[in-house]
Amino acid sequence: MTTPHADPPPRDPLESFHAIIPAGGAGTRLWPLSRRDRPKFLIDLDGSGRSLVQQTWDRLLRLIPAERIHVVTGAAHAAAISEQLPDLQHLLVEPSARDSMPAIGWAAAVIHATDPDAVVGSFAADHVIGDDEAFAAAVREAAALAAAGLVATVGITPTTASTAFGYIESGDPLDIAGAPHARAITTFVEKPDSATAEHYVQTGRFSWNAGMFVTRTAVLLDHLARLQPTLHAGLVEIAGDADALARVWPTLTPIAIDHAIAEPVSREGAMTVVPGTFSWNDIGDFAALATLRDSDAGAVWIDADGLAISDDDTVIAVVGLHDVVVVRTRDAVLVTTREHAQQVKQVPAALKAAGRENLV
Amino acid sequence: MTTPHADPPPRDPLESFHAIIPAGGAGTRLWPLSRRDRPKFLIDLDGSGRSLVQQTWDRLLRLIPAERIHVVTGAAHAAAISEQLPDLQHLLVEPSARDSMPAIGWAAAVIHATDPDAVVGSFAADHVIGDDEAFAAAVREAAALAAAGLVATVGITPTTASTAFGYIESGDPLDIAGAPHARAITTFVEKPDSATAEHYVQTGRFSWNAGMFVTRTAVLLDHLARLQPTLHAGLVEIAGDADALARVWPTLTPIAIDHAIAEPVSREGAMTVVPGTFSWNDIGDFAALATLRDSDAGAVWIDADGLAISDDDTVIAVVGLHDVVVVRTRDAVLVTTREHAQQVKQVPAALKAAGRENLV
Repeated sequence: MTTPHADPPPRDPLESFHAIIPAGGAGTRLWPLSRRDRPKFLIDLDGSGRSLVQQTWDRLLRLIPAERIHVVTGAAHAAAISEQLPDLQHLLVEPSARDSMPAIGWAAAVIHATDPDAVVGSFAADHVIGDDEAFAAAVREAAALAAAGLVATVGITPTTASTAFGYIESGDPLDIAGAPHARAITTFVEKPDSATAEHYVQTGRFSWNAGMFVTRTAVLLDHLARLQPTLHAGLVEIAGDADALARVWPTLTPIAIDHAIAEPVSREGAMTVVPGTFSWNDIGDFAALATLRDSDAGAVWIDADGLAISDDDTVIAVVGLHDVVVVRTRDAVLVTTREHAQQVKQVPAALKAAGRENLV
Repeated sequence: MTTPHADPPPRDPLESFHAIIPAGGAGTRLWPLSRRDRPKFLIDLDGSGRSLVQQTWDRLLRLIPAERIHVVTGAAHAAAISEQLPDLQHLLVEPSARDSMPAIGWAAAVIHATDPDAVVGSFAADHVIGDDEAFAAAVREAAALAAAGLVATVGITPTTASTAFGYIESGDPLDIAGAPHARAITTFVEKPDSATAEHYVQTGRFSWNAGMFVTRTAVLLDHLARLQPTLHAGLVEIAGDADALARVWPTLTPIAIDHAIAEPVSREGAMTVVPGTFSWNDIGDFAALATLRDSDAGAVWIDADGLAISDDDTVIAVVGLHDVVVVRTRDAVLVTTREHAQQVKQVPAALKAAGRENLV
């Protein structure tokens, strides 16, 4: 009888895990709460007491230490990020906005230079997640897939047939240790019409694309070298020589990570998805915000209902209107309906066109 | 052939004319512009640069000198009235609100004590009139009727079949010098339903009751002595002894002049009406205000229209709502529709019920 030998303890999939938080985006559909110099991720939109980027930070800090969290943001918001995240050690400041692939790729290349075995996960700065445990579990599975050389995403299990998000179609289950719920991705699809969205949700095969991507830096850089060679070369140069930033950055191809990596790699069969069963909200507009937070307790509703938010403790009264959205800030009032929430972005556009930049 | 002799020059009907402006009323349907300590008559509601009581003053000053204009108001608003009307010489301060007959009767009794031949006209402090010349012409005719011992009112020629006003039915033409358009009044009727209002307007016999009454003080006091003897006695006592005010005022019958004088005297055949062909607006609610003033020039409308007023120079943006009313003040926002404008009075009522007196 031989002495039973224990299996080697499984490697913690988060041991070399770094998080990248691209903190960009205007949030013009949340005007006047969200402003050019105070975008969505810097605001406590859900009334929790923490801004969205602070909530993202808190969520990741449950998984990994602060020294492995990296934020990429524009020069206009660097000071606010530093103020809101006093323990942040890695802040990459973009000279200009070039979409998500340069931002995430830059951070990945910088991380790779000091840790060639690193796994990185990118997480938007301005999404709200309801269940940190379920989030952590999904990220662990995605990290296990990444360790196996795959690119993983966390696909949000749909709660409605939303037409506001892109969808991910999942295929066969995979047999990867530490990722029991993972499946191959068949295809990424753009925002559907509502009949198509209904169909997607009924099949049970589709999840929402929340822009969460997890991969080894080596794998990401290899894909980039093949698929976006000039972007790859620029990112490697910047990561190796900080002085090159100002010169090289403006030449980088502005492209989203979905188009640069996720879609072509899924066609090659190397993209995988882990189901995210937590509640998730990208607060894309006031209709989405209305599902997250209550109206001011002091608001007065006479034959009326909806969402009323005053950020200066004044009273909002609504008479005879339903599903209305009323938002008051120091310098503006917005009145709309949940149904028209997507059109709100036209307001800052109109103000900009009228030269009223201070209100944008 | 006899020398033709000239008629004696006609006496100016305004020679002994005094104006009484009862400045009261809460204007709760114009919340949050109109407030308990800043009621409708103290506000520049139409954007003219003058408050409504100042406009009333200006209009009367075209007819008579300042020393013949009398304002009756509550103690809470006496200082504001004095500030807004620096040339006002006769301000009567009511110890409490007892409706319009005590207010107008007190002023009439005071005027009568110094000028027994006086003719008085009462004019609300918070109405907007579009044509001062036509107003003056109507008041001159009414004063001529008053000089003849009648009680006259100016009935506004209707422009719509409004259900917001009481109506005056006119009867036969009268033959009184200086009042060529005067008619006897058949009856005063309460606010009608819309079918009745349509009928009234089609007959051409009905006009809106704007609460303008013109009469000799002696005639008014005689009618009061017959119809409201205790009220008459109280008013005479107060007019003769200012020290009696605090004691007697709370005992006066609280009654509107329409019920105390106009209706019973019309049944006796001694009420007359002069047509008021000027535009007139009592700004009873935001629907009425919307006909008088434009939205803020800087308001932003996206697939939307209505009335937007910000009294602190901030921007109001409306997306996807029609016929909406949005009003912003330092401490409040109101959102309603023209259709629901009458219900706005429920907002200050709700605030009061919630103990939020500072917002009422």
